[in-house]
Amino acid sequence: VAEMVDSTGSNGCSTVTRVLFCGPYWPASIVYTREYLQNYPFIQVDEVGLDQVPDVIQNYHLCIVRNRRIDSDIIARATQMKIIMQNGVGLEGVDIGAATEHKIKVARIPGYTTGNAVACAEMAIYLTLGVLRKQKEMDRAVNRRELGTPAGETIHGRTIFILGFGAIGYELAKRLRVFGVKILATKRNWSSNTLPCDTEVLVDKKGGLEDMYEFAGEADIVVTCMALTNETIGIVGNKFLAAMKKGSYLVNIARGRLLDYKAVLSHLESGHLSGLGIDVAWMEPFDPEDPILKFSNVIMTPHVAGITEYSLRTAAKIVGDVALQLHSGKPFTGIEFVN
Amino acid sequence: VAEMVDSTGSNGCSTVTRVLFCGPYWPASIVYTREYLQNYPFIQVDEVGLDQVPDVIQNYHLCIVRNRRIDSDIIARATQMKIIMQNGVGLEGVDIGAATEHKIKVARIPGYTTGNAVACAEMAIYLTLGVLRKQKEMDRAVNRRELGTPAGETIHGRTIFILGFGAIGYELAKRLRVFGVKILATKRNWSSNTLPCDTEVLVDKKGGLEDMYEFAGEADIVVTCMALTNETIGIVGNKFLAAMKKGSYLVNIARGRLLDYKAVLSHLESGHLSGLGIDVAWMEPFDPEDPILKFSNVIMTPHVAGITEYSLRTAAKIVGDVALQLHSGKPFTGIEFVN
Repeated sequence: VAEMVDSTGSNGCSTVTRVLFCGPYWPASIVYTREYLQNYPFIQVDEVGLDQVPDVIQNYHLCIVRNRRIDSDIIARATQMKIIMQNGVGLEGVDIGAATEHKIKVARIPGYTTGNAVACAEMAIYLTLGVLRKQKEMDRAVNRRELGTPAGETIHGRTIFILGFGAIGYELAKRLRVFGVKILATKRNWSSNTLPCDTEVLVDKKGGLEDMYEFAGEADIVVTCMALTNETIGIVGNKFLAAMKKGSYLVNIARGRLLDYKAVLSHLESGHLSGLGIDVAWMEPFDPEDPILKFSNVIMTPHVAGITEYSLRTAAKIVGDVALQLHSGKPFTGIEFVN
Repeated sequence: VAEMVDSTGSNGCSTVTRVLFCGPYWPASIVYTREYLQNYPFIQVDEVGLDQVPDVIQNYHLCIVRNRRIDSDIIARATQMKIIMQNGVGLEGVDIGAATEHKIKVARIPGYTTGNAVACAEMAIYLTLGVLRKQKEMDRAVNRRELGTPAGETIHGRTIFILGFGAIGYELAKRLRVFGVKILATKRNWSSNTLPCDTEVLVDKKGGLEDMYEFAGEADIVVTCMALTNETIGIVGNKFLAAMKKGSYLVNIARGRLLDYKAVLSHLESGHLSGLGIDVAWMEPFDPEDPILKFSNVIMTPHVAGITEYSLRTAAKIVGDVALQLHSGKPFTGIEFVN
């Protein structure tokens, strides 16, 4: 795409197309996007602090959400905005109704096109191994000159419940299958024709959300891989956790608020949960002094599941191309509109 | 086995068969072995400090080496000893020639029978993901309230060189295959009829030790999975490391002294190595203040690759059965004699 665009803007507002990255987090994404667009001076890429977004939003045509809440007040100010998009999948912070009202398109980058799903699936395996092998206790053992302790557990032989079998769930199941596991998975609609053809051999037991308590009761490890919506917020709450086996593990690489904080905390306190591995948290960034991080069987990574060299580069190309396409009035590629 | 044995010892020395675990490390192994043997009072299982081994060795019939060096001096004192064995695979610390001379059998527990190879392969994947995702930098980011940083790399798309394609290498290749990688592997003898039948599809390029520099130059990640012998000690030295790609990664879940310490240190200092993940070290336990652990791209676990619930239990059954078989004069099962 990039080669065919000149500076004659057709975005209807200005001869410079202005792209806003909200907030300072996921710093590599803007670096890679700027690098991709370095030969196009008529695309301007800026980054501002989360608090400053409302004050500058009226100057931009394309907005990359990151973890900024884009509510109706901000959308009302975004008078030149054409597209609000995520540099990834999750759009839970965007008031899509308000955007539609203001004739602003909202889009995500599907995970299967960028390697995001692959990267997140790998991170889910890393966190699963981290809780099974007791990462913090291993660190302590190294520091105390202990050897051959703690005793951990293998993935091999376990039953794993993938809560939300989308692009990440699929990539995860594909990798876990050969570890020698039983895989349970829930999904709203299994009849979707977008399912990869090997799904049948990857999943031992398929269900809908109505089956989740039963599946939770069978699993040694639950991995949450679903989008955060009004229906899924707090889905892993007291009822779900109590349904999980005593001594089982929970891994979350999707969105922090899928888990009910108090419910998780109390099931860690009681020992019902044997471990928690999270790449995402309830507030982000998360307080490193939060009591939940003090448990020796809780490990956390800084929302980097999808942040790899490969996925950054492919996502930056998509964002860059969208900016160029917006500028030149060409059809958009690589994104999925939700309104 | 256990059910058929009575207390009439046939070990030729005593009506109690005495089993010695050398040293305090890998503490769970003796716990599980004692549990397995709890109904057999005529089998006595003891553990003594590494330094005390020479003073008590004459009282024992079966010895579990752990990381104690069993040299010819100790063997000369072991006047009642029938079998010296490892609670695992590695026998590099045992003077096998001296044992043979004193008519003591030496044995290992093959990794494929106990889940040891499976557990080690999983640990290799954990350490690989840990270095690719920059474990220490992730921890720092969490503590500094950063988000979406560091950017890591995926296993997907990488070329992985498995140095020593034995039971662990096979289990590792089986799991890595579906991550989407190219796999190179070296082995002394590929024509061995013990090779699993799917080896052909798991390994893209097979070679002998003479190919290791060429393979090192192609790989993004090298995983050492071989036994420590006179030929393999320091095999990953300056020549090997210099042959590795700039920016590549090294993972060791086998034995610490396969790696030349000074060579690894200098290739970390120069930045030629992008990361090092080790479950084993040059001296064990390893000094937690060692300069090599100060690099932010070096991670270490406390020699627990094979230490999982499942492998501990199966290994304890084998050790327990060997003790019972030694006591009753029955044929040995589950172990592989090397002399």
